[in-house]
Amino acid sequence: MTEQQRLQQVRDRIDAIDGELLRLISERATCAQDVARIKEQAGDVAHYYRPEREADILRRIKARNPGPLDGEEVARLFREIMSACLALERPLSVGYLGPEGTFTQAAALKHFGHSVRTQPFGTIGDIFREVEAGSCNFGVVPVENSTEGVVNHTLDMFMRSPLRIAGEVTLRIHHHLMSRASGASTGIPAGLQRVYSHQQSLAQCRGWLDRHLPHAERVPVGSNAEAARLAAGDSDSAAVAGEAAAALYDLDILAHRIEDEPGNTTRFLVIGPEDAPPSGRDKTSLLLSCRNEAGSLYRLLTPFADQGISMTRIESRPSRQGVWDYVFFIDINGHRADPSVSGALQKLENAANLCKVLGSYPEAVL
Amino acid sequence: MTEQQRLQQVRDRIDAIDGELLRLISERATCAQDVARIKEQAGDVAHYYRPEREADILRRIKARNPGPLDGEEVARLFREIMSACLALERPLSVGYLGPEGTFTQAAALKHFGHSVRTQPFGTIGDIFREVEAGSCNFGVVPVENSTEGVVNHTLDMFMRSPLRIAGEVTLRIHHHLMSRASGASTGIPAGLQRVYSHQQSLAQCRGWLDRHLPHAERVPVGSNAEAARLAAGDSDSAAVAGEAAAALYDLDILAHRIEDEPGNTTRFLVIGPEDAPPSGRDKTSLLLSCRNEAGSLYRLLTPFADQGISMTRIESRPSRQGVWDYVFFIDINGHRADPSVSGALQKLENAANLCKVLGSYPEAVL
Repeated sequence: MTEQQRLQQVRDRIDAIDGELLRLISERATCAQDVARIKEQAGDVAHYYRPEREADILRRIKARNPGPLDGEEVARLFREIMSACLALERPLSVGYLGPEGTFTQAAALKHFGHSVRTQPFGTIGDIFREVEAGSCNFGVVPVENSTEGVVNHTLDMFMRSPLRIAGEVTLRIHHHLMSRASGASTGIPAGLQRVYSHQQSLAQCRGWLDRHLPHAERVPVGSNAEAARLAAGDSDSAAVAGEAAAALYDLDILAHRIEDEPGNTTRFLVIGPEDAPPSGRDKTSLLLSCRNEAGSLYRLLTPFADQGISMTRIESRPSRQGVWDYVFFIDINGHRADPSVSGALQKLENAANLCKVLGSYPEAVL
Repeated sequence: MTEQQRLQQVRDRIDAIDGELLRLISERATCAQDVARIKEQAGDVAHYYRPEREADILRRIKARNPGPLDGEEVARLFREIMSACLALERPLSVGYLGPEGTFTQAAALKHFGHSVRTQPFGTIGDIFREVEAGSCNFGVVPVENSTEGVVNHTLDMFMRSPLRIAGEVTLRIHHHLMSRASGASTGIPAGLQRVYSHQQSLAQCRGWLDRHLPHAERVPVGSNAEAARLAAGDSDSAAVAGEAAAALYDLDILAHRIEDEPGNTTRFLVIGPEDAPPSGRDKTSLLLSCRNEAGSLYRLLTPFADQGISMTRIESRPSRQGVWDYVFFIDINGHRADPSVSGALQKLENAANLCKVLGSYPEAVL
């Protein structure tokens, strides 16, 4: 066979597969309409979107994926198929921290797929307000992203909002070394004196900077965008920042993806009027408050240890309600409906000044 | 049967469909690897990405789509499946006009799917340079988007670049009425005195503005972002602009999608080292230059009329090379390999000062 004949054979097979895919995707969409009809007849219209079932489906797809596409890629395709089917039942509207193009929008689209309607808001407070008012079904807010300095604002909002956490999203974040566009060759200029970046980004790239720029001074600044701005004004300097900053300040990227840990991620929360039913692999987020006494936090956390429940994160914030009070945001593994978790929570509620379950939700799948 | 039993029955069917979809998508990816292997063995490594075949596949999918998903949605899902399969053969890198979140990035992802690597650049000139240097496989540049004021720059670049047009992308653009966030109720404030926007956006919303704001003065400004900035500083004013501008200047959207024509689109071009082979439904873009004499353009275009070839666009630009010369950018229906088009082009080349075929490429499918 010639190259052309062999290619034609494979392409014919692809065309046949595409016909089958089209038939199955259409049948799946028809099933989604059936689900909507059954729920409508039963008067159960509040729960078209079932985060726990979507998480379960994506996990099974990843577990059974035979390759050659990797599990993330296959799950992403199924996310889009589910998103399209859901939009047919009822299109979701999702608010996020704008403007368009932020990581938060990327997180919203990663979690809900591209068939939802996303709407940018100027502040985290606006997103909470719009979801509370029901003009958005869900909101997506950053929560572990200290290079952008917005974490605390999200946590503060939870103190006074009735909204629950219905999901989490993680995004991989890449750092690049960039400097003023010289138009000259690529590579790192020999005379580089300073590297600007946020403290946390400098720390995340320390190994790389030690190896490639051992003599350049590292100058921590308020944000990575600020670092890029400074590097744009000074040809002896470089910045460590994301691609958007390079484009914004017309900097050349000298080296891509210089973070030491390739799994460098940032985390977002999905907020809505309710949290999610159990999916089999869940997290629960809590807000706890206790007196600022030695050992009081330790005592509060004893029920988790007793039940063998692991904490994945703990964050303290000064409360606005009293000089001596602290508020803790805690993530644990498990769903509040699990017997062990619900037992520990009951003990906690008795012991703490304040114990608010912000929500149980599926662990991020993608 | 109870609601729960009926739901379970449909969900079991969905799970079975998902298993089939996973099997077929994986087989399709294996086929893509076979294609790559055959091409490698034949030494034909330059053409992993075949825009004409992708356009043909998407057109067939849309034509055969049985519903209930609409054709655009189904084509979007297939675009993503093809994108994932192509990335397995060879991941494409695509440069676009940054920063992240611009319409141009949205256009790049719409055309190539989310499995490509997109890279933002600060200027249109940078994108041409990077694609010419081969550090990006393709670039995406705006060409009919005068509200953002960048069209001319793209056309000017084509005058001196060896790059060809390998595709076109269209995006729907929505305009919204927005004003300074009042925190008060929704709806249009009675005392609104002025509406700022780019001339073209004002024209695109004229009917709506006539009906809803007949007494407000319409003030054309340089860009829609500038309009939003002005509205942010003046509570008697509103702006007509996109969502991103509302988020950037913390404006409340008073009315969504106020454009008179719901099909209001903007157009982008895909540039690369080669144009595309015929797909069956193609366009060709030309750059023509002629003396500024009465009737000279008319005479130049006679071959098209004679062959029954329709022009979809014509744009004139002053040439940088002579005070009296004009340059015309012309889009026609058909591929330069079509006999009628190639005949007309030959006549044109004899008659014009300059006639450069910028490329033939599939009409936008999505």
